Formats: sequence, C-alpha cells, structure tokens
Amino acid sequence: MISNEIQVRVRYAETDQMGYVYYGNYATYFEVARVELLRSIGFSYKKLEEEGVMLPVFEFSIKYFKPAFYDDLLIIKTTIPEPPGARIKFLYETFNEKGVLLNKAETTLVFISRATNRPIAVPDDLKVALK
Amino acid sequence: MISNEIQVRVRYAETDQMGYVYYGNYATYFEVARVELLRSIGFSYKKLEEEGVMLPVFEFSIKYFKPAFYDDLLIIKTTIPEPPGARIKFLYETFNEKGVLLNKAETTLVFISRATNRPIAVPDDLKVALK
Amino acid sequence: MISNEIQVRVRYAETDQMGYVYYGNYATYFEVARVELLRSIGFSYKKLEEEGVMLPVFEFSIKYFKPAFYDDLLIIKTTIPEPPGARIKFLYETFNEKGVLLNKAETTLVFISRATNRPIAVPDDLKVALK
Amino acid sequence: MISNEIQVRVRYAETDQMGYVYYGNYATYFEVARVELLRSIGFSYKKLEEEGVMLPVFEFSIKYFKPAFYDDLLIIKTTIPEPPGARIKFLYETFNEKGVLLNKAETTLVFISRATNRPIAVPDDLKVALK
Repeated sequence: MISNEIQVRVRYAETDQMGYVYYGNYATYFEVARVELLRSIGFSYKKLEEEGVMLPVFEFSIKYFKPAFYDDLLIIKTTIPEPPGARIKFLYETFNEKGVLLNKAETTLVFISRATNRPIAVPDDLKVALK
Repeated sequence: MISNEIQVRVRYAETDQMGYVYYGNYATYFEVARVELLRSIGFSYKKLEEEGVMLPVFEFSIKYFKPAFYDDLLIIKTTIPEPPGARIKFLYETFNEKGVLLNKAETTLVFISRATNRPIAVPDDLKVALK
Repeated sequence: MISNEIQVRVRYAETDQMGYVYYGNYATYFEVARVELLRSIGFSYKKLEEEGVMLPVFEFSIKYFKPAFYDDLLIIKTTIPEPPGARIKFLYETFNEKGVLLNKAETTLVFISRATNRPIAVPDDLKVALK
Repeated sequence: MISNEIQVRVRYAETDQMGYVYYGNYATYFEVARVELLRSIGFSYKKLEEEGVMLPVFEFSIKYFKPAFYDDLLIIKTTIPEPPGARIKFLYETFNEKGVLLNKAETTLVFISRATNRPIAVPDDLKVALK
C-alpha cells in the first residue's frame, strides 16, 4: 500500500455559478494526484506513454460530501491499495485547509499497448517502483 | 421512468494527447444531458436555481468501455429510473455514431435550499413535470 | 469572404462563480465555430489532421463587452475575411438571444505539416472549398 | 512596475490530440498567474470579491510561438506594467523548462461593483499594495 499527498489550489476557472468547484473538475485533480504519487516513487507517467503504454481510466466513482471553493488549498490523499495486475486502482480523499473531508473517490486504470491497442500486464519498472 | 436522447459533438478542447475524449469531460456531457432531459418535460434547471434551489451532484460513477474521438457525434441516453424524493438519480449511456456503447454512468443529485443551505424535498413543479 | 453562424448553449461547467461564462471558454466556442464554418463549405478539419496537416492557433485576441450566462443560447458569427495563404484568419462575434453583442474576437492559425513540423501553404482542397 | 513568476505543471486534461496544451487553457494559467502576483504583494483576489468588487477580463490577446507539452513545468512571468486606474493591465510570458519563450499575452481587467454592476476605480488597498 503506497500513499501520497498533494496540494491543489482551486482556480477561478474551476468554479461554477453555484460558487463550488464544478463536480467534473475533480477528475482532473485526481489525474494530477496519481501522476504525482507515481512521480514520488520515481515513476514517470509521461515516460510510460513515450514507451508505448497508455493508461486510460476504466472506472471512476466519487462521493461528494462538501463543496470546495475558489482559492481553497485542497489536500488530496492518494493511495494504491493493492499491487496492480492488468489494472491499477487508486483511492482518493480530498480535504480542505480545515481538514474537512470533501469527497472520496476511486479510479481503476488499465494498461494498454499503443502498438496493439490491447491490455497488457503492469510494466516491470512500475512493478519494481511500487515495491 | 423518463428518458431522453441528446447529441453532443466532441470538441477539440475535450480531447487529450491520447487522442481520446478526456475521461473527466463526460461529467460535463452528462450535465448537459440531464438539463436537456428536464427541459424536454418542460422543466428549466436555470429557473430552479433562480427560485433558490441548487442541485449539486452527490454521487457520480462511470464505466468506460471504449473511447470517444474528436468530432464524434455522440448520443447520450439519459433516464430518470425512479421518482425523486430528497434525491434524484440519472442514468446515462453514451454511444458513438456507429451505435457502439462507449460508457455507462450514474449520478445522484440532492435538492438544496440556497437560503438554508440544507437538503429539501423535490420541488412540487418538478414532481408534477415528471408525471 | 465566407461567413457562418452557429448556436452554442452555455453549459454549467462553463460558468464561474461570478455567474459569467469564464473568459477562457470562448476559445473553445470559437474552435467549434471555425470547424463548423469549414464543415458548412464541405471541408472537414478532422480529415485535414488525418492527412497530416495540423492547424494550431498562432494569434488570438478578444474584447469582452458583456458577459454570457448559464443556459444562454449564444450565436457566434464567424467570418474568413480574406483568402488564406500560409495562415488563415477567422473573425468572431458572439451574440446572446436578445441580439446583444457580447464580444468580438480574432484568431490566426497556421498550417503545419505533421511530418516536417514546419509551416506549409494552405492545402489545395481547402483553397478550392473556400471559393 | 511589479513582476512575479509562477510555475505551472501541465495536466493531462489540458493537452489536446495534437499533443499540445490546448490554446484556450493559457487563459486559465494567466488567471492563476495574476492572482499569485497579487498574493505576492499581500493582496487577495478572493477577498476583493467578498468585498463586492469583481474583476472581469475586458481584453485578452496572445501570440503563440511554441507549444507546451504534457508534464512540462511552465514558468509564467507576470507584470503589471503601469499603475491601474479604472482598469488594470497584466503582461505574461510563458517559458518552458529549457527557458524557451512559448507565448506572450496581455489582459486588461476592469473593476466592477457587484452592487451597482458598474465600473469603479481601483480599490484603495490594491493601490497601496501596488506601491
């Protein structure tokens, strides 16, 4: 089980007229969060793609408890709860500066070879980095 | 059970470097889809807000089977599967022009009074429109 | 001089907490507008890219006179004011449903060969379509 | 003349199928850049809005010289070139990690009273902070 924390400052563009962060924008925050989790263990998602492996999202689910607001400095805790096989799962919790849990989410991504456009097993260097 | 279909043309801005529609953008498509479903039964989401009722999303989940591409004319089928109470649920299926199912999703939204910032029951005029 | 008009419904995602359409989102509307102008004369931007020609934006400028609001059905008038050479210029005017001019904008795009990553002249089939 | 520099990491969501940062996304980067410039001199844009002053963009123009790519750590230099009156101008230059100038841009924003919806002079505390 590997975890990480990042901070994300809410941009004006990400708010909506309710004054909340638009519900669809968390998907972007979580993309940033998982890429930074991988970077923190020495693994570059960018390099993965350059080597011909794509990692599209297969499943995404989120429960929203409280809204985030403009200029909030959000904390996102990201966890890889189990060793990846053909798929890799990430769990996310978003907190505001006061430590209030705003939402909980989960994504499952699949490793795809760009050459064959078919699923492949987790790349060896990621398997090693995750240990 | 009430259903509707809309068409959404994929914008260049909505693609990512994988050449797919970015996974987070479907949340926006589904927002458009449920607003148009409500409009099709004579109900304006904009007016709802002007009358002091907000309808934030409480839960969102999606499974992605196939990607959508730039300039695709997507068809989104939206369904309200059951009469709303304090919450309203929408189901979504996204198809491409060839009729291929790209993803399935679900959102649950809650009625919130702007005055009290607290959950309220489904507004009467929406209840009537849904009949 | 070739012109076209499209309608764009403002999405909730596109508003910000001021209650306006976020100023950066017009770039996306104009992308839709110029692609539809080209489609209206029988030219597919998607096909252009598939044939190895990219058309990135080189210059973009906009003056905002009035805001657009959620659910507004905007009208965007797009014009190609002169025959393209190595560059193609588009002019845009955005109106709301009441016919009020909200903003005026201009983009200049350049034709780039994906193979050489260098500027090229306007493709012949676009030159023909523009006549 | 007041200047500042921020770093922005390019998100996957911000790329398009050309593999570039979508041209419309720089508007968001510049919003972040000017807010951080103001924060660096002790001025909070969020607080400004809470006090009833909005600062919508009136003019925006940008020239793109080179694209930015996924995961690039961009540097944005922001300058307020002259003391603001009823309007405030910001200049931006975006560089990639190699120091290559990617684009140059300019925005002019106007101070609007939320109460009257009319232009007002630059608020006193901002005038002081800018000194």
